[in-house]
Amino acid sequence: MAKKSMLLSDLFHETLKDIYFAEKQIVKTLPKLAKKAQSRDLKDAFETHRKQTEEHIERLEQIFKMIGKAARTTECKAIEGILEEGDEVAELFADGKALDAGLIAAAQAVEHYEMARYGTLATWAEELGMDDAAELLRQTWQEERETDELLSHLAVSEVNQEAAA
Amino acid sequence: MAKKSMLLSDLFHETLKDIYFAEKQIVKTLPKLAKKAQSRDLKDAFETHRKQTEEHIERLEQIFKMIGKAARTTECKAIEGILEEGDEVAELFADGKALDAGLIAAAQAVEHYEMARYGTLATWAEELGMDDAAELLRQTWQEERETDELLSHLAVSEVNQEAAA
Repeated sequence: MAKKSMLLSDLFHETLKDIYFAEKQIVKTLPKLAKKAQSRDLKDAFETHRKQTEEHIERLEQIFKMIGKAARTTECKAIEGILEEGDEVAELFADGKALDAGLIAAAQAVEHYEMARYGTLATWAEELGMDDAAELLRQTWQEERETDELLSHLAVSEVNQEAAA
Repeated sequence: MAKKSMLLSDLFHETLKDIYFAEKQIVKTLPKLAKKAQSRDLKDAFETHRKQTEEHIERLEQIFKMIGKAARTTECKAIEGILEEGDEVAELFADGKALDAGLIAAAQAVEHYEMARYGTLATWAEELGMDDAAELLRQTWQEERETDELLSHLAVSEVNQEAAA
């Protein structure tokens, strides 16, 4: 592809493949986080978000269809780095009192990456006149945001006090 | 360090080293983004944020002092992945009409990573009774958030239309 011909529609397609890769990694990671978590509420939050993530993947597949492209991934080094850091924290704090606080921090870094990407994609979809795609992307963005808020709430209401003790 | 002894204060220290590494990478990357950007306003935004980032680094050094630790970095694979992805987009869209839109997306992924980390660190600092550290962390969090909003504004007000044309 000639570089000069790359337009916003190309960037949209590239970024869609990036977040599709990321979501597929995340859906595999969430059950591991749920297993490691000590707090019952945190386990439940990870499990609920796994189900949501499956829907997010389906929405992305709908959008690939809307733009007439096959649903393909492209390696997302950002999510790989973020998840690897989460693994390191889980390893370092295994069975300790700060484990859940570390898992929440790792999951919030994931949520923030997704919020950045979905926010960008929704704005680009609007600019490109793809209102249906924009709506799906905004829905997912909203759910990532709510998950982030729920994790903040769990951190403050039960997890951090335990970790600081 | 025995794993079971790891507490929130250890997690705070580990995460401080992580974001200190990230900020040091970011401060080196921002001038490159400013150079590549096509829009004058975007160049200025990156330049302004470079100056802010220097202050963010100083604030982190103050917090290392507060906890009686040397200011050291630990490799942050998340920021490495995020920045590498930004390089790839800049390369792929070099000189094209969508370049600035891609640079903004990359920078917003960086801002979101920082918001996640500073939000977490501020909450932990409060839990640990370190109110001065919490205030510095909240200040930085607020500035990252404002930068993210400014980038969103630039995307919608001038960059995306050009990229879609």
